[in-house]
Amino acid sequence: MKFELITKDPKTRARRGRLHTAHGVIETPIFMPVGTQATVKSMTPDQLRELGVEILLCNSYHLLLRPGHETVKRVGGLHRFMGWNRPILTDSGGFQVFSLTSLREISEDGVRFQSHLDGTSYYLNPEIAVDIQMALGSDIMMILDDCLAYPASHFEADRSMKRSLVWAERCHQHWKKNPETSQVLFGIVQGSIYPDLRRESAERLVAMDFPGYAIGGLAVGEPKPLMYEIIEQVDPYLPEEKPRYLMGVGTPADLVEAVARGVDMFDCVMPTRHARNGWLFTREGHIVIKNAKYKEDPGPIDETCGCIVCRTFSRAYLRHLFMANEILSSVLNTIHNLYFYLDTVRRIRQFIELHRFDEFLVETRRLGAH
Amino acid sequence: MKFELITKDPKTRARRGRLHTAHGVIETPIFMPVGTQATVKSMTPDQLRELGVEILLCNSYHLLLRPGHETVKRVGGLHRFMGWNRPILTDSGGFQVFSLTSLREISEDGVRFQSHLDGTSYYLNPEIAVDIQMALGSDIMMILDDCLAYPASHFEADRSMKRSLVWAERCHQHWKKNPETSQVLFGIVQGSIYPDLRRESAERLVAMDFPGYAIGGLAVGEPKPLMYEIIEQVDPYLPEEKPRYLMGVGTPADLVEAVARGVDMFDCVMPTRHARNGWLFTREGHIVIKNAKYKEDPGPIDETCGCIVCRTFSRAYLRHLFMANEILSSVLNTIHNLYFYLDTVRRIRQFIELHRFDEFLVETRRLGAH
Repeated sequence: MKFELITKDPKTRARRGRLHTAHGVIETPIFMPVGTQATVKSMTPDQLRELGVEILLCNSYHLLLRPGHETVKRVGGLHRFMGWNRPILTDSGGFQVFSLTSLREISEDGVRFQSHLDGTSYYLNPEIAVDIQMALGSDIMMILDDCLAYPASHFEADRSMKRSLVWAERCHQHWKKNPETSQVLFGIVQGSIYPDLRRESAERLVAMDFPGYAIGGLAVGEPKPLMYEIIEQVDPYLPEEKPRYLMGVGTPADLVEAVARGVDMFDCVMPTRHARNGWLFTREGHIVIKNAKYKEDPGPIDETCGCIVCRTFSRAYLRHLFMANEILSSVLNTIHNLYFYLDTVRRIRQFIELHRFDEFLVETRRLGAH
Repeated sequence: MKFELITKDPKTRARRGRLHTAHGVIETPIFMPVGTQATVKSMTPDQLRELGVEILLCNSYHLLLRPGHETVKRVGGLHRFMGWNRPILTDSGGFQVFSLTSLREISEDGVRFQSHLDGTSYYLNPEIAVDIQMALGSDIMMILDDCLAYPASHFEADRSMKRSLVWAERCHQHWKKNPETSQVLFGIVQGSIYPDLRRESAERLVAMDFPGYAIGGLAVGEPKPLMYEIIEQVDPYLPEEKPRYLMGVGTPADLVEAVARGVDMFDCVMPTRHARNGWLFTREGHIVIKNAKYKEDPGPIDETCGCIVCRTFSRAYLRHLFMANEILSSVLNTIHNLYFYLDTVRRIRQFIELHRFDEFLVETRRLGAH
């Protein structure tokens, strides 16, 4: 994997980059749709390609449980399994273990947990988390980290961050046992909302020399200004020549704010999950499609949007599909919301190339839509 | 509307035709996917076009209830509403009123019924049924008929058939009040399983001179051989120069058998409904995708199938999507099953053109797959 830094915005920390992976090139800043169970819910791979999706995120936790990473490996790996020949990033499963499962037993070595599906007992530790992702065959793997809830005391956050560092080192060493692999491993900066802990986490991870760095443990309930502060504070400790990935964030405005603070990569379930609930993004804020006022509205979701849904269907039709509980409602709403996110990062990239990203940032704040 | 009879198979009654409608040309024999609520469940119009779908059926009953035919009319008609610019056939709503609703009151004039959704009271009679379809703007409309359950006595079937004839005449007269419309109206032959009633129904409808004729009241529980017999018996009373539509039928083998008896058009929910239940058609019979033996099966649904699903995805992936209750399961299964049906009618048309349809019929019976 190689990361090219193409240009930097002169007035913000925004970066325009290009990430070369085993399954193709990603233009950054980039948004990664979430394909939890080896499918971006309701989308065919063709539809994702038509939307211009460059990279997907899949969840190791869900694939471990169903159909099982060994099954995926035996039928040819995750790319072949889901018919997606472009890059895939997998998380380590840690976040889901800490948020979805019951009866967790955490030790210094790893974590035992019960499946949220059927209660089956599983064990995850740094080496197993890497092995699962190696079996899946993702282009970018994530280290296993100890995921802390918000709020957490400085004492708790320190202990959790230090455990995550030990696990990061073990992941790194385990990954390095396969020097011929084209799969790369990203470290994850933790430390909750404490600048000293964030700095220590970042510096010690950078010393391990990962191919890329994520900022984890944000968007877990803390106020937005605090999230932006932490990103801004972590950024100087991360090496310029490596990609930076803000995990699980966020709204379109969050993307713009984080790019202004040096972030290159994002993932979030928001566009796809909101779509299925009939919450649709527009330049001027969201609309809730089930609202009765759209019953005979012949206009598109967003007059300024170029997506196939806005070019083809009325709000009246989209409301009808939602009210009638039709599958096509999820499909069309997802196409629109993903287009909105991908269009946002396309515009971000254009403004950085023009060295005018600060204008886009100001305009985003002025609209204050999301 | 114009119907061209291109050629006839020399050894069977199979016909190769071409139906010209306001929204384009349909090659017959044809299969019409069902788009009950103004959407073929889980399919985008683009996906339907890529599958080679030439004409859809939509259900007036469902659209009357939700979103309402007047709403559809006000936002530009059904074609524009659902983003489908090719032909659409609508049924009259009668079949659903007789099968889905409760508290029906049937009189000689029409039928009062309560919505299966919320109990709202509606009234349908021949004139209203035509008005609803005129508002929707379908290319082919169907008369309102009295739909009889199976089995029915000769007495009941006679009374029901005669009421349907009166309603057919009223529909015809009401339709004729709009001589400038491009929408056409098909008559429906009734008479249950009684040859004398079927003959009387056909002859009296033909005397009214409809642009096309349907055979109704079949595939309602009667044995298959009896269904084939009735089709065979009705066929000679229908004019050669008009299209013939067998309503609500059936399996791929049913299509082949009915084409051999002179039928040109079909609709059925079977491919789409079965798809959502994980029942997939193959040349050698169906497969039930949730079966554990497909868990690590790297092969396609059907080795001989050319659809995008069979060219891209394994049974293992399709099983995973089904087990995980993913929307994409319905999408991909529907693409495959619709392709199977459309490929069947494409092959039917080719064999008729070659004057070798009898061979295809024999081969279908030999396989006995469906």
